[in-house]
Amino acid sequence: MPLAVAAGARGIKVHHVNIGQPDIPAPIEMLEAIRGYSSSLLPYAPSRGMPETIAAWTDYYSIHGYGFSPEQIIVTTGGSEALWFAFMAVADHGDEIVVFEPTYANYFGFASSAGIRPVGVPLDPAGGFHLPDLATVEEHIGPATRAICIANPNNPTGTVYSAAELGMLLELAERHNLFIITDETYRELVFDGARFESIFHMAREAGREDHIIIADSISKRFSATGARIGCLATTNEEVMDAVGRFAQARLSAPTLDQLAAVPVLSNPIPYTDWLRGEYEKRRNVVFQCISEDARIRCRMPSGSFYIMVTLPIDDCDRFAAWLLTDFESEGETLMVAPGSGFYLAPDAGLDQARLAFVLNEDDLARAVTLLSEALDRYPMGPVAGHA
Amino acid sequence: MPLAVAAGARGIKVHHVNIGQPDIPAPIEMLEAIRGYSSSLLPYAPSRGMPETIAAWTDYYSIHGYGFSPEQIIVTTGGSEALWFAFMAVADHGDEIVVFEPTYANYFGFASSAGIRPVGVPLDPAGGFHLPDLATVEEHIGPATRAICIANPNNPTGTVYSAAELGMLLELAERHNLFIITDETYRELVFDGARFESIFHMAREAGREDHIIIADSISKRFSATGARIGCLATTNEEVMDAVGRFAQARLSAPTLDQLAAVPVLSNPIPYTDWLRGEYEKRRNVVFQCISEDARIRCRMPSGSFYIMVTLPIDDCDRFAAWLLTDFESEGETLMVAPGSGFYLAPDAGLDQARLAFVLNEDDLARAVTLLSEALDRYPMGPVAGHA
Repeated sequence: MPLAVAAGARGIKVHHVNIGQPDIPAPIEMLEAIRGYSSSLLPYAPSRGMPETIAAWTDYYSIHGYGFSPEQIIVTTGGSEALWFAFMAVADHGDEIVVFEPTYANYFGFASSAGIRPVGVPLDPAGGFHLPDLATVEEHIGPATRAICIANPNNPTGTVYSAAELGMLLELAERHNLFIITDETYRELVFDGARFESIFHMAREAGREDHIIIADSISKRFSATGARIGCLATTNEEVMDAVGRFAQARLSAPTLDQLAAVPVLSNPIPYTDWLRGEYEKRRNVVFQCISEDARIRCRMPSGSFYIMVTLPIDDCDRFAAWLLTDFESEGETLMVAPGSGFYLAPDAGLDQARLAFVLNEDDLARAVTLLSEALDRYPMGPVAGHA
Repeated sequence: MPLAVAAGARGIKVHHVNIGQPDIPAPIEMLEAIRGYSSSLLPYAPSRGMPETIAAWTDYYSIHGYGFSPEQIIVTTGGSEALWFAFMAVADHGDEIVVFEPTYANYFGFASSAGIRPVGVPLDPAGGFHLPDLATVEEHIGPATRAICIANPNNPTGTVYSAAELGMLLELAERHNLFIITDETYRELVFDGARFESIFHMAREAGREDHIIIADSISKRFSATGARIGCLATTNEEVMDAVGRFAQARLSAPTLDQLAAVPVLSNPIPYTDWLRGEYEKRRNVVFQCISEDARIRCRMPSGSFYIMVTLPIDDCDRFAAWLLTDFESEGETLMVAPGSGFYLAPDAGLDQARLAFVLNEDDLARAVTLLSEALDRYPMGPVAGHA
């Protein structure tokens, strides 16, 4: 970020495809709820969430076929807190949680703050970052393993897991008595007319729902990343008791944001249907533009708003910095998220980068053009890439 | 809480002196900032805080004589998060942090979530919950001790520590190379014309400021508990680096609340001077009323908005529940915070309760009258109290 700020100070326009910060307005009902706040008091919300916000989450889930009761939901300060609570509820210091690499980088932070060891199962870019077979995943499960954590649809890869993949995880969870923490922040962002399949639905049909913990967030589906509202949902009473105690210790999630979330959670479809169409157009633009440069390898993402690309470079951290310090074309450059940040091992993902297609179509096309130009001009280091 | 809800459902008016939830309006500038939110976007704030909110905190501290630079402040989701970040920054799993008992109960929660062991130094109610001498505190410091954590002015006791007490803690911190985490949420609520003395000021004069971490919050001083904005302030760069990483993992504190905090943090005195007067009146009422019942023992609090009372009962948890399930007078009762919740040992503080003087003067007087009536009628258990 300091490099981007410095580039901006030199008068360079930086296209931010590095973070999931959309340029899309939040639903008008949210903004109206904020502007219409009429009380003169700004009181604590209950630790587990305001009754109306919990009710709005149950409405939301019921529309999506989940059927949670109010006591199965705790409102959190963003999806981040839901994930952190889930990690702490299922694992103690020294325990392990299996993740798939590349993975949402903040999982590492939540795990390390709770003294939990994340264990990464490597995914293959050429296979569209789909899950390996059961035996390969099982190699990463040991006596200290407490949970498998997935993001579905995935950040950073844009992959949406198939019913077969989710069934394989359920099978492993049953065999080794593990929790599955499923981060479904991008639930609605599934493209090409596909229907989103949640591992919770499959587990419920199999009578195994008590092993599932959903970590959720309004941030992306309502383009409201600054409103820090998420939730943790589970039918597991023991997990709920533990999470209730964590919630108590931090007092409450923000009152205003909870109120603002109520109208859109209760009636999400008009906004999220429109949003899916918008991101699908953006995905098509970014994928089309990338396809025109044979040096940039990727698979078309099926969901979320990220695409993970493999570049003919030796070290994307260095490349990403160089984009901000030494590259510009007609006064513009771009900022990407280096792939290494999504891996545990320091030498993994060095030729990868995540792009977020959160900008409008023109800016996205421009960002990819800039990326191509940058690859033309980037001075490779002593370690050659695979171009 | 479920008992209080049930009492309410039976038509009983419950006077809530159990929690620090004031009935006082938030500053109008905060409410206007919320209602005037004009953007259609609700974006993430930077992890360390919005530049304008950090600047408002530096303004605020500069008015109070602290003189922090922007990079010495990280905006947090409430004071709770600041405390939790501070605990994690200074101590690893298995390390110890010294607290004084009775203590703010959530310190236990933050410590346990990070695998840190809180070690309690007992305080004497008859001594106004002031700190014991250096040798007594030192007995609780061992090789695993990393920090001493204080709330000043204190929650739950209302005690304000003297320069001599703070000097003693600084001496210990120097001798044993410890951090001091100072929770100054109630900074402005110091009564009887006294001037608040911060351990940070004393440490700065002694050139020892790098050992101090301030955990702060706008919740109480601006009657805005539902706006989850606090901060962590320290001149220690190493601590700041660690806290910056924790902040990054949870993405950001709520954007709206950060914006709402700006005008009052930049110009706090008009509101906080008025608020101090208001709480001083309430403190006087509650102390006067309590003094009329010789069975209720307490010292007059010098700060915050709590008073810790010793009651002629054997088990305040049982008494507090009984108040809600079996007692009422003219359709009213009160809810108190049982003393045991502020102690680590399960059998400590059983004859104590914390009252928050957050209600208006009439309701506070009524709450104390109800407490006296309840003591008349409370059926003592087999273990006799000390009445």
